[in-house]
Amino acid sequence: MNYVVGVDVGGTKILTMLADPLGNVLAEVTVPTMADEGAEGVMERVVQTVTAVQQQIGVRGGLLAVAVGVPGPVDVANGWVYFCPNLPWTNLALKQILENKLQVPVLVENDANAAAFGEHVYGAGVGQRDMIYVTVSTGIGGGIITNGQIYHGASDNAGEIGHMTIMPDGPLCNCGNTGCLESLASGTAMANAARELVLQGRGERVLRAAGGQLGTVDAQAVVAAAQEGDHEAKAIVAGAARALGIGIANLINIINPGLVVLGGGVMNSKEMFWPVMQREIESRALQAPLARMKIVPARLGAKAGARGLIALALKCYRN
Amino acid sequence: MNYVVGVDVGGTKILTMLADPLGNVLAEVTVPTMADEGAEGVMERVVQTVTAVQQQIGVRGGLLAVAVGVPGPVDVANGWVYFCPNLPWTNLALKQILENKLQVPVLVENDANAAAFGEHVYGAGVGQRDMIYVTVSTGIGGGIITNGQIYHGASDNAGEIGHMTIMPDGPLCNCGNTGCLESLASGTAMANAARELVLQGRGERVLRAAGGQLGTVDAQAVVAAAQEGDHEAKAIVAGAARALGIGIANLINIINPGLVVLGGGVMNSKEMFWPVMQREIESRALQAPLARMKIVPARLGAKAGARGLIALALKCYRN
Repeated sequence: MNYVVGVDVGGTKILTMLADPLGNVLAEVTVPTMADEGAEGVMERVVQTVTAVQQQIGVRGGLLAVAVGVPGPVDVANGWVYFCPNLPWTNLALKQILENKLQVPVLVENDANAAAFGEHVYGAGVGQRDMIYVTVSTGIGGGIITNGQIYHGASDNAGEIGHMTIMPDGPLCNCGNTGCLESLASGTAMANAARELVLQGRGERVLRAAGGQLGTVDAQAVVAAAQEGDHEAKAIVAGAARALGIGIANLINIINPGLVVLGGGVMNSKEMFWPVMQREIESRALQAPLARMKIVPARLGAKAGARGLIALALKCYRN
Repeated sequence: MNYVVGVDVGGTKILTMLADPLGNVLAEVTVPTMADEGAEGVMERVVQTVTAVQQQIGVRGGLLAVAVGVPGPVDVANGWVYFCPNLPWTNLALKQILENKLQVPVLVENDANAAAFGEHVYGAGVGQRDMIYVTVSTGIGGGIITNGQIYHGASDNAGEIGHMTIMPDGPLCNCGNTGCLESLASGTAMANAARELVLQGRGERVLRAAGGQLGTVDAQAVVAAAQEGDHEAKAIVAGAARALGIGIANLINIINPGLVVLGGGVMNSKEMFWPVMQREIESRALQAPLARMKIVPARLGAKAGARGLIALALKCYRN
């Protein structure tokens, strides 16, 4: 039988799926990335997971293509990885190296783009040829689908929506800029806001929800305190929701998608932020594009990337 | 001989060009729009200018296609005009009406998209298949070119870059939102900031440059005072330049264009704002997309729209 494999390489774990030519997932394996053991080691584990999913269904030949998702900027045409904030892969000819090891066509894609394509082909975006995928967890990422394809931009860097400035003098972002969407609406942003509160001698209930330690104050603690009705925590969540609404309204006005698919860890507390986000979008997006689009939750969760890579591997093979 | 015609309909004037199949402009005419005389009258003047450019070169037959640019949102596939802030055209089947009158294929396009395509085919964007055109005058508009084509979005509303929020609690914009790029970086924004200054009993030199009347304080007066070294006027120009830099950095991070082409009235005082804008872009755009792109002045000035319409009419005929 013939099949393809998708390998989603994250900072902490590698999720690998094997699927038949119709995209049905027949095998799946997750292993720790062990990023601290170096570039070679991570590559070796990628290869091992490809073997592992083959063994799960008892096949050896028949592998048509492998698509690998990488958490950083890549050169798609050449399968080159520039760098990854959470991986020891820098200026790596990943496609070439893996093609030598696996002896099949290998495609390399940015992980957020892969997740966007996964939601487009198998998830919340089925049937919508112009959509934007927004993922909010510790950071904020995105992928743009136009005319049913991943939109890569002039140098494969499109979709860094977490780094649009929406408050010029806002908090410092990991990228070095101030007031990025990510610095205002991500899980990290909520945790930072809560820690600042605690340092000012406030935020008692958030601190309690975090087990009493400043170091363990995170977005989950903020959401937990907010769900218990704590006003300080609710204000932090509302601020993040408002910022997210501004970011999505900007995407609507600039790109005019038919659909925005919202995923990431933040969706676990959807009911806490969605109404505020929605109000902000309605007050800031232009009527014409807003009237002809929808905003929906993602459907594939943490598997969106691997599913997208399956779809890309199938496409790569067919072309 | 065969030829095409492009008609750029603005709020105050109509610019119509006739070009041969290679895109060489052979005739050109400008007439006042006289928008206050109603929808029919404006349509009649569009038809008259088509006849006028034909008469200029002494031809009657041979017209292959006409492309019309409209200052508002349109449905491109059906040639439908939704509305125009500065024209009496609302819910108008423009393509159908003009095809009946002219008996040739008619294409309808948004004017900023047409200008973007003009700069792409004949101007500063030649050879760059992924570019964004940004025009800053009384308002701020834009057009996105991807893979050598106008990017329309899911419902032909893409490119409303003037209405991205970059300062949530900023000035009120004409669209009803607060802190849009247009409310901070347009000619209108500069004029409003200067008038506020005058109302506070300051802004003497700006007021003098405007002839001493609050009502005549405009962006030109601000720029004139700034060029004379007035600190208050220079601060207004710098604020607008900074906002424009933020908006362009956001476009770079989201869309990753290979080129940004900057046009509109603001380019008349390029030396006043460019360095501040450039600094802001460099501090806010991500390194990877920024390193692989350029920002350049537009080349076609007020004729970009009509030239783009010529290119679209030629494309429409060839398809």
